[in-house]
Amino acid sequence: MTAAYYRGNKTFEVARIEAQPPGPGEVQVQVAYCGICGTDMHAYHGNMDARVGFERILGHEMSGRIAAVGEGVEGWAQGDAIVVRPLDPGAPNPATEAGYPHVSHNLKFIGLDTDGALQQLWNVPAFTLHRLPEGLRLDHAALIEPVAVACHDVRLSRLQPGEDVVVIGGGPIGILVAMVARAAGGTVVISEVNPHRLAIAGKLGFDTVNPAEADLKAEIEARTGSKGADVVFEVSGTQPGVDAMTAVAATRARIVMVAIHAKKPQVDLFQFFWRELQMIGARVYEPEDYEKAIALVAEGQIDADTVITDVSPLSEIQAAFEALDASPTALKSLIKVGDVA
Amino acid sequence: MTAAYYRGNKTFEVARIEAQPPGPGEVQVQVAYCGICGTDMHAYHGNMDARVGFERILGHEMSGRIAAVGEGVEGWAQGDAIVVRPLDPGAPNPATEAGYPHVSHNLKFIGLDTDGALQQLWNVPAFTLHRLPEGLRLDHAALIEPVAVACHDVRLSRLQPGEDVVVIGGGPIGILVAMVARAAGGTVVISEVNPHRLAIAGKLGFDTVNPAEADLKAEIEARTGSKGADVVFEVSGTQPGVDAMTAVAATRARIVMVAIHAKKPQVDLFQFFWRELQMIGARVYEPEDYEKAIALVAEGQIDADTVITDVSPLSEIQAAFEALDASPTALKSLIKVGDVA
Repeated sequence: MTAAYYRGNKTFEVARIEAQPPGPGEVQVQVAYCGICGTDMHAYHGNMDARVGFERILGHEMSGRIAAVGEGVEGWAQGDAIVVRPLDPGAPNPATEAGYPHVSHNLKFIGLDTDGALQQLWNVPAFTLHRLPEGLRLDHAALIEPVAVACHDVRLSRLQPGEDVVVIGGGPIGILVAMVARAAGGTVVISEVNPHRLAIAGKLGFDTVNPAEADLKAEIEARTGSKGADVVFEVSGTQPGVDAMTAVAATRARIVMVAIHAKKPQVDLFQFFWRELQMIGARVYEPEDYEKAIALVAEGQIDADTVITDVSPLSEIQAAFEALDASPTALKSLIKVGDVA
Repeated sequence: MTAAYYRGNKTFEVARIEAQPPGPGEVQVQVAYCGICGTDMHAYHGNMDARVGFERILGHEMSGRIAAVGEGVEGWAQGDAIVVRPLDPGAPNPATEAGYPHVSHNLKFIGLDTDGALQQLWNVPAFTLHRLPEGLRLDHAALIEPVAVACHDVRLSRLQPGEDVVVIGGGPIGILVAMVARAAGGTVVISEVNPHRLAIAGKLGFDTVNPAEADLKAEIEARTGSKGADVVFEVSGTQPGVDAMTAVAATRARIVMVAIHAKKPQVDLFQFFWRELQMIGARVYEPEDYEKAIALVAEGQIDADTVITDVSPLSEIQAAFEALDASPTALKSLIKVGDVA
């Protein structure tokens, strides 16, 4: 079978290797499609070399079918269409004991800390599997992992139908958060400075504001009768985004921290006090978010054909990463890993 | 009757003035005791001159009895022992319409924006009143307002019995938050750098850490089996306090923002993402917090005699402010405004 190894220095090697049978508690998955995540691009740029090394098969936004079932695995059979929730919580610790294995202190992220889905036959623990409904296209199903991120963000926001939502940052995750928030009944505005991303958001039917050209706070106040946004998703990872998140928030608004802030930005904590704002950190997903994501993609509530901007074969992975890295307009690039019916 | 006017430049004038009858919807209160709040001290220092002016009677941490009832007021009678919840939400706006009049966009804080309790006969809207139970000492009852702040903070934290709590900052509000959290079943540690305040916290039976002398994060991890604090109250208003609030927090911890941060500190938003922390802004109180505070003080769950460090007559208000301002050990100074049985 074929696998793609990250070899460092923005380079992948596509190699023929021998497939291993699934171990006890594992299944062997025939991978159909695998999306390229922002984290994969971060690794491609060499920013995660210490974590992933140079013998790593990346990939975690996948779809496929079960090829073989290991010892002790029940409830799954060859041919089942599945996606993998790529989290292995590891040894028990305070986070798992509190009921939050998805943010376990010992979490291994499959596809970064262990080998991922950019290989045709992939062995994974059976506890990571979610079943796909009949008729769901496997290319669309490769969106389920990032949609599950968005479902987690929206669930933790406690968004109610009719509430006003601002999504700060209109990249791939921001767009998916906006779609899931809209599907949940929110009235969504996307704040984004990149004109290409603004165009995509507009094409997807979203109201948009470019905060480099307009006063975002005034725009949101005008749309909400001076109330402000009930729910704000900070997806930009920037200081201006952090400034905006408190500026546009209604009294008692919930601000969901989706972005990864490597630096410590300045935060207007006075506004948290004064208007009793809440901030909710949100990372990856829990099983119910995967089930919700599967349902949304299956129901067509995610415009998968617009979100998926290109598909390349596994043999062309190097070119696919290079093209995505250079593209101002791509949203989600998929790798077709294998021919799976 | 006698009233104390703030005249600017750290000066009060005690004057004899004529009492006015209560207007429609108001009651006239015979004020017994009034505590000196940090906000009053802030005004005394001239930091709120633009807001309060030089004709203002301050004071809002009070107890008293109804002296007269205005037109249209029902359910209250002369002689009733009461405290005033000093919030007037003003004209309707998005915050009041959302059910949060205590953080109304048009909120008037009685005792800052209108005249307060440092006068012997005080007219207030009847909707601000809470009834005191028989037998509750009126000096102790003057603590109900700051205890209600603490009750609001603890209620919004969703603290459960047995949870680990860190209170960052052991001043008067921090101590009351710690007392209310302990009464709610929390296991409380107070972090404070001032040795006088550490001594008071220790006298009140609290476990304390001085983060200038010990590694607070390591101390909390040692006490919680590496879990961290389930609930953190940031009461310090400092950058080191903000650094500590994320450092000591358990996965999915709730951080309550009690302090007023005039500057925008740097906040470790990565930890919010990584451990799914939550931050909850909390300001003043709602009616149920007042009822809870009344119950706690009446039950003796607040050590009122330790918290109240001195009592001065209204005629000595100037000396009382000067003494409190100079004292490293005072917690709560009361003014005895009038002789109320």
